[in-house]
Amino acid sequence: MKRYAIAAALIFPVLMAYAQPKQQPAPKIKNIIFMVGDGMGTTQIYAGLTANKGSLNLERFRCIGFSRTNSASDYMTESAAGATAFSIGQKTYNGAIGVDSAGNPQPTILEIAKQHGLSTGIVVTTDITDATPATFAAHQKTRDMQAEIAADYIKSEVDVLIGAGREHFDQRKDGRNLLTEFSRKGYQIKHTTDDIVQVKQGKLVGLVKEERVAGRGDQLARTTNAALQLLRQNRKGFFLIVEGSKIDDGGHANDLQYVTEEVIDFDKAIKAALDFADKDGETLVIVTADHETGGLTIAEGDLKTGKISGKFSTDDHTGVMVPVFAYGPGAEAFMGIYHNNTIFRKFMQALKF
Amino acid sequence: MKRYAIAAALIFPVLMAYAQPKQQPAPKIKNIIFMVGDGMGTTQIYAGLTANKGSLNLERFRCIGFSRTNSASDYMTESAAGATAFSIGQKTYNGAIGVDSAGNPQPTILEIAKQHGLSTGIVVTTDITDATPATFAAHQKTRDMQAEIAADYIKSEVDVLIGAGREHFDQRKDGRNLLTEFSRKGYQIKHTTDDIVQVKQGKLVGLVKEERVAGRGDQLARTTNAALQLLRQNRKGFFLIVEGSKIDDGGHANDLQYVTEEVIDFDKAIKAALDFADKDGETLVIVTADHETGGLTIAEGDLKTGKISGKFSTDDHTGVMVPVFAYGPGAEAFMGIYHNNTIFRKFMQALKF
Repeated sequence: MKRYAIAAALIFPVLMAYAQPKQQPAPKIKNIIFMVGDGMGTTQIYAGLTANKGSLNLERFRCIGFSRTNSASDYMTESAAGATAFSIGQKTYNGAIGVDSAGNPQPTILEIAKQHGLSTGIVVTTDITDATPATFAAHQKTRDMQAEIAADYIKSEVDVLIGAGREHFDQRKDGRNLLTEFSRKGYQIKHTTDDIVQVKQGKLVGLVKEERVAGRGDQLARTTNAALQLLRQNRKGFFLIVEGSKIDDGGHANDLQYVTEEVIDFDKAIKAALDFADKDGETLVIVTADHETGGLTIAEGDLKTGKISGKFSTDDHTGVMVPVFAYGPGAEAFMGIYHNNTIFRKFMQALKF
Repeated sequence: MKRYAIAAALIFPVLMAYAQPKQQPAPKIKNIIFMVGDGMGTTQIYAGLTANKGSLNLERFRCIGFSRTNSASDYMTESAAGATAFSIGQKTYNGAIGVDSAGNPQPTILEIAKQHGLSTGIVVTTDITDATPATFAAHQKTRDMQAEIAADYIKSEVDVLIGAGREHFDQRKDGRNLLTEFSRKGYQIKHTTDDIVQVKQGKLVGLVKEERVAGRGDQLARTTNAALQLLRQNRKGFFLIVEGSKIDDGGHANDLQYVTEEVIDFDKAIKAALDFADKDGETLVIVTADHETGGLTIAEGDLKTGKISGKFSTDDHTGVMVPVFAYGPGAEAFMGIYHNNTIFRKFMQALKF
């Protein structure tokens, strides 16, 4: 019997180790691509889907939530407070750039990611000093302090910066040339999309002309891809912000064609992000908006021809909650209805910060 | 060594059986509560949440999708085609009641549930012969054939019918008294909410006055609960339709207070459904809309006082996609963006039909 006992004692641990119910390991999230369609509510998305003849890459998402966009000061937020809620995890007053309700600078998700060794990037289609991108790398009491915001980028250590607004860097009242300063810090400086996509490694500031889709073509998808190729070289991971900035401009202009062409353009950048995430397997992609712009409603449309007509109720923002789309490991955390500032916490948890 | 082999042979199967990774069984879905907020788009929900001072029971849902509402004939559906897509699983022409694009009757999800031994019910706040409820139990070429729709209910074998529109049953041009016919078939006939909630078993036709919330109080939540108490007695399960019918009326009337009071009232019925599902554990609750009504946008609001102002762009429907909320076992199937008619297929799969 002793022998049986020995046999059992030998076999048991081996078998148990083999047959242990496989603990599903929490999916590893190395990279986050956070995509903000400025002013893109439910109606803007469906208008874009209609104008694109019935399909969008957004249909590839399964996890959907709603973000409640009100700011600390107002039922209707604007981009500064809306994006600061994402960047620092607190609702703040309208106009605030990376500062809390009392006006105090708070660490942004990009700064925290950097501290943890990740690479960071911001890619937009408007001035890089505009409110939404600024909230992730700058700390200023009001969004109109564009010169100060540009100077904050120098301190920010963001690895890849792509957008418009060159004048805030090299035609400044204070006489500083921030492009020279960036250059001294080792950044490559480029001024066209063609030049940007040629950069294969290192840090990059890409400052191009601000144009509508007709002029800039697929700049957003191409520069998003360029940023991804640079940032992926960090084995610790990256946090990339991509903004479809000018959906908001179409809303303010009450120009439906402007809105739909910008939504479709943003959707091409979403495709770039999703394709990257599919190959990479450790990338979480989040798409949402800071707020709705224009009070857009859709009157008529044709899913075959892409013809669409709609009405705007305001040239300002509205207070309606906006959809959140999540893809990749950890996407489930973005389901349900929640306040915009909780998205920061979800990022922190996803990256185990 | 032989002895070791014997020992191993004896121990191995026992250990393996014990240590087998536990297969997560597919969650059992016995009951479905399908709740339609007629005309309830993203904006109506957020308007209701605002008027309700910042909260709704809809916030209890985690699984969210979007339903594309266009009909087979039109970019902008109406309730008949919108709800027939749910009931028969095919997009059809505007005005169709339980018939396909060629005008042919098709089996509805309630009829199929009945064939599989489930109990069925319909609870609404408008005429029970109105388009949305009708599509689940009637088959008519146009929605205005209310007398024929009422007569279809006699044939339908739906166990619990609660709504308004008594005149279509007992003040008919054809001289039939459908209430007498229902009575002969064993249905209990009641005409007030107080009487309806007293019914503790059996089949029920409840035909009450059509009123706004001020007049009817919490009729929808109470009659939803009453229906649940009757239908739950079938051990095989049930399929219950609940409609917040008059959100649509508020939209057509371009009356925001009307809209928000109806959304909040519908949300109370949603609470009843979710509380039932929590206790039951085998109930799937789906909340969605057939379409948006009124082209509502929100201008200003106050989440503390519930004050809200908005604008309507039309007294008709709009084409925008509408949210879908899913709760309970199988809820994950309702995530993503999809066409309204696929909801029928999701129901069929959930119930393993």
